[in-house]
Formats: sequence, C-alpha cells, structure tokens
Amino acid sequence: MNKKYEQLKKYIDKRVALGAAMALFEWDDATLAPEESVENNAKIKGILAGESHKALINEEVKALLDELKDADDLNETEKKIVNIMLKEYEQLDAVTAEEYKDYNELVANSINAWEKAKESNDFSVFAPYLEKVIAFNKKMATNRNKNNDSLYNILLGDYEEGFTTEVLDKFFEELKNGIVPLAKQIKAKEDSINFDFLRKDYDIEKQKEFNYFLAEYIGFDFKKGVIAESAHPFTTNWHNKDVRITTHYYKNQPESAMFSTIHEGGHALYEMNIADKYTLTPLGTGTSMGVHESQSRFMENVIGRRESFWKPIYGKLQEMFSDNLSDVNLEDFMKAANRVEHGYIRTEADELTYSLHVIIRYEIEKLFMENDIDVNELPEIWNKKYEEYLGLKPRNVSEGILQDIHWSQGGIGYFPSYALGSAFAAQFFHKMQEEFDVDKALMEGKVDKITTWLKENIHQYGSAKNAKELLMDVTGEELNTKYYVEYLREKYSKLYDL
Amino acid sequence: MNKKYEQLKKYIDKRVALGAAMALFEWDDATLAPEESVENNAKIKGILAGESHKALINEEVKALLDELKDADDLNETEKKIVNIMLKEYEQLDAVTAEEYKDYNELVANSINAWEKAKESNDFSVFAPYLEKVIAFNKKMATNRNKNNDSLYNILLGDYEEGFTTEVLDKFFEELKNGIVPLAKQIKAKEDSINFDFLRKDYDIEKQKEFNYFLAEYIGFDFKKGVIAESAHPFTTNWHNKDVRITTHYYKNQPESAMFSTIHEGGHALYEMNIADKYTLTPLGTGTSMGVHESQSRFMENVIGRRESFWKPIYGKLQEMFSDNLSDVNLEDFMKAANRVEHGYIRTEADELTYSLHVIIRYEIEKLFMENDIDVNELPEIWNKKYEEYLGLKPRNVSEGILQDIHWSQGGIGYFPSYALGSAFAAQFFHKMQEEFDVDKALMEGKVDKITTWLKENIHQYGSAKNAKELLMDVTGEELNTKYYVEYLREKYSKLYDL
Repeated sequence: MNKKYEQLKKYIDKRVALGAAMALFEWDDATLAPEESVENNAKIKGILAGESHKALINEEVKALLDELKDADDLNETEKKIVNIMLKEYEQLDAVTAEEYKDYNELVANSINAWEKAKESNDFSVFAPYLEKVIAFNKKMATNRNKNNDSLYNILLGDYEEGFTTEVLDKFFEELKNGIVPLAKQIKAKEDSINFDFLRKDYDIEKQKEFNYFLAEYIGFDFKKGVIAESAHPFTTNWHNKDVRITTHYYKNQPESAMFSTIHEGGHALYEMNIADKYTLTPLGTGTSMGVHESQSRFMENVIGRRESFWKPIYGKLQEMFSDNLSDVNLEDFMKAANRVEHGYIRTEADELTYSLHVIIRYEIEKLFMENDIDVNELPEIWNKKYEEYLGLKPRNVSEGILQDIHWSQGGIGYFPSYALGSAFAAQFFHKMQEEFDVDKALMEGKVDKITTWLKENIHQYGSAKNAKELLMDVTGEELNTKYYVEYLREKYSKLYDL
Repeated sequence: MNKKYEQLKKYIDKRVALGAAMALFEWDDATLAPEESVENNAKIKGILAGESHKALINEEVKALLDELKDADDLNETEKKIVNIMLKEYEQLDAVTAEEYKDYNELVANSINAWEKAKESNDFSVFAPYLEKVIAFNKKMATNRNKNNDSLYNILLGDYEEGFTTEVLDKFFEELKNGIVPLAKQIKAKEDSINFDFLRKDYDIEKQKEFNYFLAEYIGFDFKKGVIAESAHPFTTNWHNKDVRITTHYYKNQPESAMFSTIHEGGHALYEMNIADKYTLTPLGTGTSMGVHESQSRFMENVIGRRESFWKPIYGKLQEMFSDNLSDVNLEDFMKAANRVEHGYIRTEADELTYSLHVIIRYEIEKLFMENDIDVNELPEIWNKKYEEYLGLKPRNVSEGILQDIHWSQGGIGYFPSYALGSAFAAQFFHKMQEEFDVDKALMEGKVDKITTWLKENIHQYGSAKNAKELLMDVTGEELNTKYYVEYLREKYSKLYDL
C-alpha cells in the first residue's frame, strides 16, 4: 500500500467511526432517547461533529490528499476514496471546526424544536431555528462559492452532483407539463375510487406483524438490520451489516406503514447490498440522495404498488384483517393503493401529485437561498403555492410548512432528490423490463430477481459510481425524463380510464 | 476561568463525547443491534476508544495537567477534575492509543464470544478471548506498577481506591466468619420456606407493566431514562438526563425481573441525581463501583426486600397476578423473596450467600492475576470453589465459569465491589435509620424520603467525593463490616427462627 495512503487511512477510519457515532445518536434520539436528554445529547453530537471536522480539515490531510490526487500507485478504490475526500474537503473547509460543532448542536436542538412546533401547531417555536439553519447554510455556501454561482446550486450539488437549478428547472418544467394536465383530468374523477375499507380499524400489533413480513418479503435481512418506530420514518446505517429503518403505524391508515416499510426497505436494501470492500470507507454508502430515492421510490411505487407484487401476498393481508378486507378483491385494493388525491401531505401523496409537492419545496428553497426572505413569510408563501399547484390551502402550519423534518436537520437541497429519484427509477425500470419480465417474477413471488438486478447494477457500487455514471452504465443514456412521464401517463390513464 | 484550564476543557469535552458514543454503542449492542453487526461495530468502538486515549494521552494535556495540579486559581470542582484526570492519565498512559484501540475492539468481540459460549455451553469458544483479555490487563497493570505492588491491586484500585488485597482479605475474612456459620445453620432449614407460587406462569407483558410501575415507584424518571431488555441486566448513562437500565423477564421467575429492576433502578437513581454542574465532566458519574453497588444493592435488598416497602404495593401485584397470588399473603411473599438458597448463580443469589459467590471470584481473579494460570484450568478451579463454599458442583460451564459477563468485558477487579457495596449500604442504612424511621416512610409509600436522603448525602456529589470520603462524611467512620454482618444476622435469624 502507498505509504501516504496508509497515513490517510487513519483519518478515514476516524471519520468513519465518528460518523457512525453521530448516526447512532440520531437513530437513538429519534427512536428511544428520553425527553429531557435532548440538550445534553445535542452538545455531545456537536462535539463529535467538531472532531469529525478536525479529522478531515487539517494540514496533514491536506498535504496527503494533495500528493495522493496524482499518485499512480493507488488502486481504483483508493483513487475513488481520495476523490471523494477531496470533495468533502472542499465542503467542510468552508467552516471552522468550532462553527461546525455549533451548527451540529444547533441542528440537534432544531429538530427538537421542529417536533414541538409541529405538535403544538406553532411556527414561532421553530422559526428562530430555521432562521439560523438557513443563515449557516448560506454562509457555508458563500464561502464555497468560488465561481460566482447561485448559493442554492452549491447545496444542490451536495445531494446530486451536476443537477443545478438550470438542469432542475428544465426537469421540473417537463414534469409539470406531463403531470399537471393529467392530474387535472383525474381530479374530476378522484371520487371514483373507493378506499373506505382502508379507513377502518387495523390493529397495530397485527400491522406490525404484517410489516415485518413485508420487509422480509422484499429481502430486508434481519441479521443485518433493525426495524423500529419513530414519528417520521427514515433509514440510517453505519455499515452494510447494520442498517436500520423506522416506520410509523396509524390505526386507520394501514397503507401508510406498509408503503413506508417498502420505501425505507428500498433504502435499506441499497445499503445492505453495498460490497464489503467499500463498507466502513467513504465509498460505503449510497452514492447520492437522488439515487437513494430512486431505490426507495422504485421499491415503494414501481414494485410495491403493482398488482403482480401483491398477487402472492394479498391473501395473507386479507386473512390477517378479514373483518376489513374479506370483501375487497385484489383489483379494488390496488385501485385504492394507487388512487390519486390532491392532498396536503407529501409523504402521503400518490405517485402522480407527489412531484408537485416537491416542486413547491424546490421553488421555496431556491427563493430563500437566492434572496433575503424573512422566515416568517414562509408559511404564507407555502400556502399560496399549495393553492396554485394543488388547489388546496393548508388549514394550519402543521400540515403546511411544518410537515417535513428536512429543513430542521439542515437538509436544504434534498427535496429535488425525491423527484429525481422517481425519474431515475422509471429509467432503470424501463431497462429492467427489457431484460426480463418483471411482472412474471413478481407473480411467482420472486422479488429477489428484481433486487438481485438492483444489487448487481446499482447497489454493490456504493459511492464508487455517481448518478450520471450509473444511469449511463445501466441504461446507456443520460437522465431522460420521458420514461418517468410515460410511466405515469400509462399507469394513471389506465387506472382512471382516461 | 484559568486559561490553561480552558484549554484543558476542550480535551475534557472530547473525552466526554467519545465516552458517550462508546457507551451508546455498548447499550445498542446489548439491546438492539443486529446479529451480524458485531465485528464492524467492534472496529468502530475500537477506533473511538483509540481516539479517546489520544484525547488524554498527549504532550499538551500532559503539560496542562502538570501546570494545573498546583494552580491556585481553580475552583473546587476544577481542582477535583484535574485530580481525576491525573489519575486517568496514569492509568491510560500504560498503553499506546493503538494498543488501547485493539483492546477495545477485542473486548467488543469478546463479549460476543462469551455470549455464544454461554449459549452453546462451550468454554472453548470464549477461552482464547479470556486469555487475551487477562494478558492485556496484566500488561497494563505491569506497566503501571511503579511500587512493586501486586498486579491485582493495581486493577482493584480502579474500581475502589484504597481497597487493596490486604484490606479485602481482611474484609472477606470477616464476612466469611459472619456468614458461613449462619448459612450453615440455615441450609438445614432451606426447605422450610415455600416459593412454589413464584414458579407458576407469569405473563411477560403483565410483568413488564408491573416492572415499569416499580421503577416509577422508586423514583425512576422516565423523562430522563429508558428501560429496555437485554440478556444480562445493566445500567448505563452518558449524563444525568439520559440514564438507561435493562431487565430480563422469565416467565416462571417473576422475582428475577422485579429485583433486577429495583437493583438497576438504584444505579439509575444515583446517576440521575448527580448535580447538573458535574454532569458531562469527569465528575459526572458515580464515584466508584463499590459506591454504585451500594446504591443498587441498597435499593434491591435493604429497601426492595423489606416488608414495609411492599406493604403499599403488594395488593397491586396480587391483583395483577391474582391466579397465582390471591392466596399468598404479604408475609409469605416476603419470606419467599428473602429465602436463602445455596445456588449456582450469583445474580439469583439471596443476600446471605451472595458474598460467597463474590469471594470465589475474588480468589480466582487474585489467582490468575498473581500467577501464570492456563485459562483452561479455570472452569475446574471455579467448580472446586463452588463445592467448597456453597456445597455445589456446577453441572456445566454455563452455570459455572461462564455465568458472568464481567471478564469478557475486561472487568477484572470489579467483583469485590458487590460485596463492598453491600457493606457500604448496611453502614449507610444504619445511619439513615438513626435519622428517621425508614419503615414508617415506606409503609406510607414515601420512597422519596429515602431517595432524597441518598441524593443529599451521596448521589449529588457524583465523583466529587470518593468512597472513603462519603463513608466518613455520611456515617462518621471508615468502613466497618460489623454493620453488614449484624444486618444479615438480624434479618436471617428472624426469617429462619434461629
């Protein structure tokens, strides 16, 4: 091994271990930690983040990376690791370890404030935190902005390299053109699908049992993973053998937990399938948020809302909840699971209107990153956009601007990943269908045929290929929005008899 | 603030945060982490430990401590923190960061090996780990041994300062003289107490409910604490607002979970009651393992096995398990809860024979720390001592040498703390009874009268006073074994009508 690389390895290990500790604290805070632990745990997380900063941003690592970036005796993996670290260096070097520590402490408290604000339906509890989070992100982006770019572009690049506002504006325009007319046609027919049976009582313990079954059915390996509950479902992991998802159960909305389990399960499969040689290195996680969402949204929607997927297992669901479902045939269940509803909540949205929720957030982020906006104006801006795009005015801030956790976590620039992910997924799916009959595999209960394809083509590489490389290597072309628009048009025209 | 101290503060914070992360990983591994995560998580823990070592053992901290140890502008708390850090420096300086990292990784894997060995009743699975753990501890003790002391004394001092083998030999001798004759008298009468009703089926969910009630009844604050399940009950925390205990439920042995909840609850109250000014500093945990066990064993045995404690709540237990307990009056329940049984398992032992289990471990630790013993001889040595002290030959290694987790964790020198803790507890109790009528308070359901006394006299100080100081400040004398022996004699003579 290159001696310089060996020296670098110590810093890599330190970053990996500190990152794992921070992720575990986040998991624990969301799933288990006692109420009054927040402030002290936030301090601890802040200190760990500061140390993680120092493990990268220092003279020795700088010199090592500088020498290693042109070294010719590194193997492919080592080269890619050096490249990723150079990018991380550029990101983190924009703030001091002290600032980074304070920011991470702030974020930990901010998540708590957001939760309280949402519970009490009071934006003012969260506003001061949001203001600080935005200010920090602007400051960081400003310091990194060497080419006089827009500040929002700097952040967007962290979630999906190369997908600037220029690219995204065009992408969302194409989506809007494809989706809005379709959604309008359907709006008139929204009441045509019955879903009363999904609003009956579904025993939570039995829901849990079914969701564990579902997770296992799609290939979630309980020897390498854990399922817990949290207010807002998420996935986290620190290596490929410790991958965790959460879900949230509602008594009168069983589909919420089911599709969130499949969604988070999709994230989890990605992380579990990353090659051992990459795990515990900077290449050992999914390559970008867009690709991650492509995997979760693929499993949730393209696979999980497909009749062929349910064919082998709907009987089990029916049997477990026979009081509610014995009269409901598979076709009606699938209609209900796919029905379109112009609603307030992104995470509960159908596949068709989902992107409209994302566009709203994209436009608002762009607005506050590129302009001086008083955070107190944001609830009203939010509401107006919901009226414009979805024809609905949120009745309160909890179902309006406070619905998502992301901004409280400092995740500005993340939202477009959901729409991009859906588009990537449709493009991957198109390719997969060329290679084998997906519905046939699903009807035979062979979900592993699909997940093996994903593992071989996408998952195993971790961050060793980025989104653009994956799209090109797997599908032979760059992102092409038409696959997604066509997928939606075909699916929903059929569902609503257009 | 003294400038040097301010510089030191950064290292303190780092040590505290890394310690918290390691503790959280340990908690998580014992309660939740998936099966195959062990090795990678062990690596992570090793790296964190190595960083924690580096945060203390370095030229800058050395120089700072050197200057600060004689500084006259530190307040009392700062002085004590400097003193504790000097001690920690002396301990950790005996090994390099790299060795410490490897050792911590070893220990994480060793715990896992011990679990597997115990499950499969196969000592050979654990033996190679035990060998390495002992070797490391000997090496570390040897490097620290500046006064040509016994190696075991070096380790003992880490758990209870000043309690060397010289002190402990005498202490255990006094205990043996007090306990063995009493235990012999009782052995003949062991069958006189009926406990069949505790071997019936106790629904686990209902047990949980009762244990949560019990925890709350003794003052466990769920806003600052969590209860979970693990194979082996333990307590951990990273500050006074995040304190966690585990318990383990057995269907046909409900008293096991109940008394373990009260025991771990006693540890937890100690940690929850430490003053805010000490938390997240090196003074922010219980001062020693002996004092910690004095609090847990006080709550479990002195309080928790007392009739006056159960008087207000036995009705609730009876009601919840009416099938099993409706015919059992409080007096019979208390007899069963306190009955003496010469058994194989320390954690299930009664108060009287408990110390015999401890003496066995003390003698074995002394043996392998002061001599060259092949670990493969230990099971036989163990069994012989059980025959000698308890008249029982363990039927297999799982109920013999593999029963305790401690050695797998590197906890050599810990066991005497249990016996010391019991003796401290009896001495504190004697004082408490001089100050108020404990039984009256308990009968009125005022457990907080007792815990407040503990908080004021012991808990609040964290590590700001050591065991000897606490004993002197609270009881006005040094450790006096007679209180413990008298307590046992009085209790058991009465129980068995001697």
